[in-house]
Amino acid sequence: MQKLEAVTREVLKKITPTPEDRVKMKALAEELQQKTARACEEHGVKATIRVEGSIAKDTWLREEPEIDIFLRLPTSVPRRELGEIGLKIARRATEGAKQVERFAEHPYLEAFVDDVRVNIVPCYEVKQGEWRSATDRTPFHTDYVQKHLAESLRGEVRLLKKFLKGINAYGAEIKTGGFSGYLCELLILHYKSFAETLRAFAAYTKRITIDIEGYYAGRQNEQRLLFPEPLVVVDPVDKGRNVASAVQPQKLFTLVAASRAFLKAPDTNFFYPPKTSALPVEELRNRLENRGTTFIFLMLERIEAVPDVLWGQLYKTQRALHKLLELNDFKLIREAVWSNEKSLNVFVFELEQRFLSKAKKHLGPPLERMKECEDFLDKYTNADSVVSGPYIEGNRWVVMLHRKFTDAVELLREKLKDGGRNAGVAELMAKSFREKLEIVVNSETVEAYRRNRDFAEFLTSFLSGKPFWLETTEAQR
Amino acid sequence: MQKLEAVTREVLKKITPTPEDRVKMKALAEELQQKTARACEEHGVKATIRVEGSIAKDTWLREEPEIDIFLRLPTSVPRRELGEIGLKIARRATEGAKQVERFAEHPYLEAFVDDVRVNIVPCYEVKQGEWRSATDRTPFHTDYVQKHLAESLRGEVRLLKKFLKGINAYGAEIKTGGFSGYLCELLILHYKSFAETLRAFAAYTKRITIDIEGYYAGRQNEQRLLFPEPLVVVDPVDKGRNVASAVQPQKLFTLVAASRAFLKAPDTNFFYPPKTSALPVEELRNRLENRGTTFIFLMLERIEAVPDVLWGQLYKTQRALHKLLELNDFKLIREAVWSNEKSLNVFVFELEQRFLSKAKKHLGPPLERMKECEDFLDKYTNADSVVSGPYIEGNRWVVMLHRKFTDAVELLREKLKDGGRNAGVAELMAKSFREKLEIVVNSETVEAYRRNRDFAEFLTSFLSGKPFWLETTEAQR
Repeated sequence: MQKLEAVTREVLKKITPTPEDRVKMKALAEELQQKTARACEEHGVKATIRVEGSIAKDTWLREEPEIDIFLRLPTSVPRRELGEIGLKIARRATEGAKQVERFAEHPYLEAFVDDVRVNIVPCYEVKQGEWRSATDRTPFHTDYVQKHLAESLRGEVRLLKKFLKGINAYGAEIKTGGFSGYLCELLILHYKSFAETLRAFAAYTKRITIDIEGYYAGRQNEQRLLFPEPLVVVDPVDKGRNVASAVQPQKLFTLVAASRAFLKAPDTNFFYPPKTSALPVEELRNRLENRGTTFIFLMLERIEAVPDVLWGQLYKTQRALHKLLELNDFKLIREAVWSNEKSLNVFVFELEQRFLSKAKKHLGPPLERMKECEDFLDKYTNADSVVSGPYIEGNRWVVMLHRKFTDAVELLREKLKDGGRNAGVAELMAKSFREKLEIVVNSETVEAYRRNRDFAEFLTSFLSGKPFWLETTEAQR
Repeated sequence: MQKLEAVTREVLKKITPTPEDRVKMKALAEELQQKTARACEEHGVKATIRVEGSIAKDTWLREEPEIDIFLRLPTSVPRRELGEIGLKIARRATEGAKQVERFAEHPYLEAFVDDVRVNIVPCYEVKQGEWRSATDRTPFHTDYVQKHLAESLRGEVRLLKKFLKGINAYGAEIKTGGFSGYLCELLILHYKSFAETLRAFAAYTKRITIDIEGYYAGRQNEQRLLFPEPLVVVDPVDKGRNVASAVQPQKLFTLVAASRAFLKAPDTNFFYPPKTSALPVEELRNRLENRGTTFIFLMLERIEAVPDVLWGQLYKTQRALHKLLELNDFKLIREAVWSNEKSLNVFVFELEQRFLSKAKKHLGPPLERMKECEDFLDKYTNADSVVSGPYIEGNRWVVMLHRKFTDAVELLREKLKDGGRNAGVAELMAKSFREKLEIVVNSETVEAYRRNRDFAEFLTSFLSGKPFWLETTEAQR
């Protein structure tokens, strides 16, 4: 317990903004607010401009400040123009800064001003509950947290956010599928402290449900039907919404496991993960060749898309490739998709074996299904695809068939040469596959590994598999 | 329909004994009966001697006559001496003929007199229902059939027996696990004809239940609980017994499928299967090598045991080897055990692949099982057996482990070098494995193939897989 307090105290010192930080950020936020207001005027757009997010709620991390400026537009603006108007104004307001277009429900702009990440996001000015776009709720979230979150709890929010960042479960964007800042604030509102929050997740069994405003008091069944997710946090400003609905199971369970590990052996490492150092190339080659499994890498060069769209397409394509391999009997051990969002995108599939047998057993109908048996015999009794049979095994007909694809790489090449749209590959990936399909196996990946340090670090940690915090805590035992 | 009648008429002509056959068999049976009676006298054994079985019931096949002589002994003879006394008398009664010891519940003698198979079997002379040994029922079966089976139906029984012989589903001994003669008689008693019997089996769905004496009329539920088998024929002389209980599903379903095929395209082939001609050695080598699967043969030389014991041990060992391979992740496509009951016994396993990957995925507990997760992490976090992980996948911990056995042949060698008793190998086989374990792979079997014509024929038809009657009927379509 003392260890836990010592660790959180140490971390808190680093992540709490100093008075100077606050002055600087406040000035920057106000300046941006004014610039945005001016840009609106110039473009003849009527809008209420507000600072939202962690700055407004004083839950930002000193080392990673982020400013969210919201333009609340009148509902007379057509839905399809909302994004474009927002982008135009945001570009003007942050002129001269580095700008990245992003996408949630509609596009918005991310800019880097004085090294601070700034998001300028449009939404509608509506009454609570009359939502027109997904971001309309944000100002209400800000108001709710400002009103209910005691000053003494802001440090706890900071600790939770930093912890989630450390274990790579922070952020609601598609790439991460983790915990949003607002979700962190609600968790602290409910559990009252960082340590209690971790204790609650460490004790996870089946489901965690939080309903701060008690909207479903006495109606638990209704709540269960409405929200099937394993983690449910009812939005205090919208009882029909689960704030945690976008949290991927993987991220939820990572928090569960990391909470257990941290409570057992608290360590600042959880908040400040050690950097992975990529294995020397020869060592990598060795490991890949001697592991006794097969790694297949599908490499794509630059894909033109904002990160959220890119990741959406990468994940969709990963699912499609996964299904394709499994439908053809290849046994997947593990998989991942990696991207630097710029020059390189990589799908990794680790298979038990690259090659399957040339023949496989194919179960036919049980003898009691007379019609199906007849069809089965008509189809297979003299078919070229049959290696052996039909024969009776127990109560059913069985045949041994030639396998269509015995090589996973050949399967992928064949099914992706037209891009793989039929197999479920996402549009942008399909285009890229069609133009240049690059598949490399095992240590053939060293070329990319040598060229790209980030990819090398990713692959090194993929090979180990162990989360860094498991290495740390186990070493301490 | 005309075709069916033409076929059965033709077959019936061949399998019905001529008057001369009857005279000859009657004389032989009487002679044996007298010899047995004399042997009893000589040994001071008080016994009632009767001719039972197909001769007594006039349901024997002209081409394959078989004489069953029963010694009914007084219940004063101790149970454990029954077999020995029976053997002693039988040996004396058939002195000079070729003799083979056999085993049902107790040992009995099979002899070949004038090319006729003769069984001399001891049992107790008891009242109906007061059974002391399994064979005590036989005289009652004879009486029941003699009384109820109309003369006009005896040909139908002969047809059914011959059909079952043709498709290799006739005979209740352990090797076959098929239909007994008595079962055939009861089926004809119930269905009234060979064709109707086949129609009933062709229409098989879920279960066939026959209760000629109506013991369970109105008590179907009780009957279902008592007899879980897919084919139930209540013994008219013992309502607690299912005459079909020893019929293996494989044999039942072979009858179902063959009935359908025969009714569709009646042919004398079903009764007189064409002889398999073994493939030329080079062709066999080719097929084994190019099939794309792996054949593993375990060969045993002569095992000293009566056939029923031998087959019991062979089947038990086959199940043990099957389990051993599956527990180690090898994918079985097909298997068989073959024996000439003399010089050679062979287990055949056809696997998808002989070699597995060096590593495999091992699923751990779901995160919600806290204690199990802790044990899992304690076990695997720093274990040498781990290739990668532990990592979280979805809601559970997972590790990648080194596989213990990657070569099926090595697995078998290792586990059988002490005979394999721990793996469930039957005693006689274990002894043989311990002394000389011979495992050959794919075309390495050609040596045995070349030396043993019966084995060659077996392997040829195993490779095809197709039952002969499927080849015949499909070819006719």
